[in-house]
Amino acid sequence: MKITIFPLRDFPIINPGDQLANIIAEELRKVDLKNRDIIVIAHTIVSKAENKVYDLDSITPSPFALQIGNMQGKDPRKIEVILQESSEIIRMNDKVLITATHHGFICANSGIDKSNTPGNTIISLPNDPDYSARQIKDTIQDKLQKNVAVIISDTFGRPLRVGTVNFAIGLAGISPLEDIRGKTDLFGYELRSTIIARVDEVAAAAGIAMGQADEGTPVIIVRGVDYSINNNSAQELIREPENDVFR
Amino acid sequence: MKITIFPLRDFPIINPGDQLANIIAEELRKVDLKNRDIIVIAHTIVSKAENKVYDLDSITPSPFALQIGNMQGKDPRKIEVILQESSEIIRMNDKVLITATHHGFICANSGIDKSNTPGNTIISLPNDPDYSARQIKDTIQDKLQKNVAVIISDTFGRPLRVGTVNFAIGLAGISPLEDIRGKTDLFGYELRSTIIARVDEVAAAAGIAMGQADEGTPVIIVRGVDYSINNNSAQELIREPENDVFR
Repeated sequence: MKITIFPLRDFPIINPGDQLANIIAEELRKVDLKNRDIIVIAHTIVSKAENKVYDLDSITPSPFALQIGNMQGKDPRKIEVILQESSEIIRMNDKVLITATHHGFICANSGIDKSNTPGNTIISLPNDPDYSARQIKDTIQDKLQKNVAVIISDTFGRPLRVGTVNFAIGLAGISPLEDIRGKTDLFGYELRSTIIARVDEVAAAAGIAMGQADEGTPVIIVRGVDYSINNNSAQELIREPENDVFR
Repeated sequence: MKITIFPLRDFPIINPGDQLANIIAEELRKVDLKNRDIIVIAHTIVSKAENKVYDLDSITPSPFALQIGNMQGKDPRKIEVILQESSEIIRMNDKVLITATHHGFICANSGIDKSNTPGNTIISLPNDPDYSARQIKDTIQDKLQKNVAVIISDTFGRPLRVGTVNFAIGLAGISPLEDIRGKTDLFGYELRSTIIARVDEVAAAAGIAMGQADEGTPVIIVRGVDYSINNNSAQELIREPENDVFR
């Protein structure tokens, strides 16, 4: 058993309104795609294709956004977008704004990324990353006759641990969790009692290839992973506050 | 750029007192080890070799451990070991016991694993996982003349997200964090502003290969990762409570 992780090289710049699923499928012709490959896609290109791009010059900040912007020394128009993309403020001080997004992901600034695309724009998370992943999966199936899994990812900071890691925020064709309760490993070291967040492991693994300095690329192929397939959603990865034993 | 992840097959059962560094180095002769390979090792075999194994029959629970065991319906001797391995109780209810270990890792049950090795034993985390990693790294250098990185890992549950993921708890020859602040990716999608927890990404990636059903193996080789080398410690991954914006 061997897992390989490699980027889709020379991936084109994506512009708002582009048919991303078609573009990805066409670009995947360059590689010898196999059934059960996992395609991990940085959310930024999905958001951009889906027009989740805010032109700050068109944003009028609310009084609350002005107040936060003033407190944090940040552009209040950006704060306004963060608030619009959030369902709840989890924590705020004079430096950070941790929110729950409409999807339920808890992260800094509602997952808003700076963008150095032309104009004064910022990029938010896709509206429905599971749906975006499904569209891409189905298009690959149609065009290339390959049955793959798709994960849409973003890098988030984490409680307890320093540094960001790539996480799954949308998925299709792969179960987010693998239940290995009751299994023992071959070596008898451990009677396992856990449910593994397989797609977060895969997203983190793909993050290594996405993040490498001169190799930055938004589409990564992960091959050789043993995974289950159910009719699933990345929403299953969100721990409800009442079940969050760490809070 | 391609990353490959593969297990060290047919790894022998480790017993308390075994010279693990020597055994790993010898087993690595089976593979075509390369400089800059990363060797990810499940902490269970490190703990076992280092005699971090508790025989429950020799444990006398304190009144406090008896009280928690009674509340949670668990073996109070196991609770006693969890308390001995902890520096602080972070949260406790009638089901879970989240502690900070002596190293500062916050996890369920101080990272204690059930063990199905002979006898009524449980395994805790190594005393100094960085030191264990360094010993293994140096032994590989001596015996095989290869300059590798070593990560000792454990699977932890996480705040905010469902499911466990493999994390780095000790390391040698690899920086835990990669600072990419100010860099842009090739595609200009994002002006990066983050410090990436590279070793957690690598541990998670190795976790895929460790956890696969019939392939369970405690030693994984990760090849092709671009990483920095400093004189580092996994302690740098621990976010101090006063800096933990998510709490």
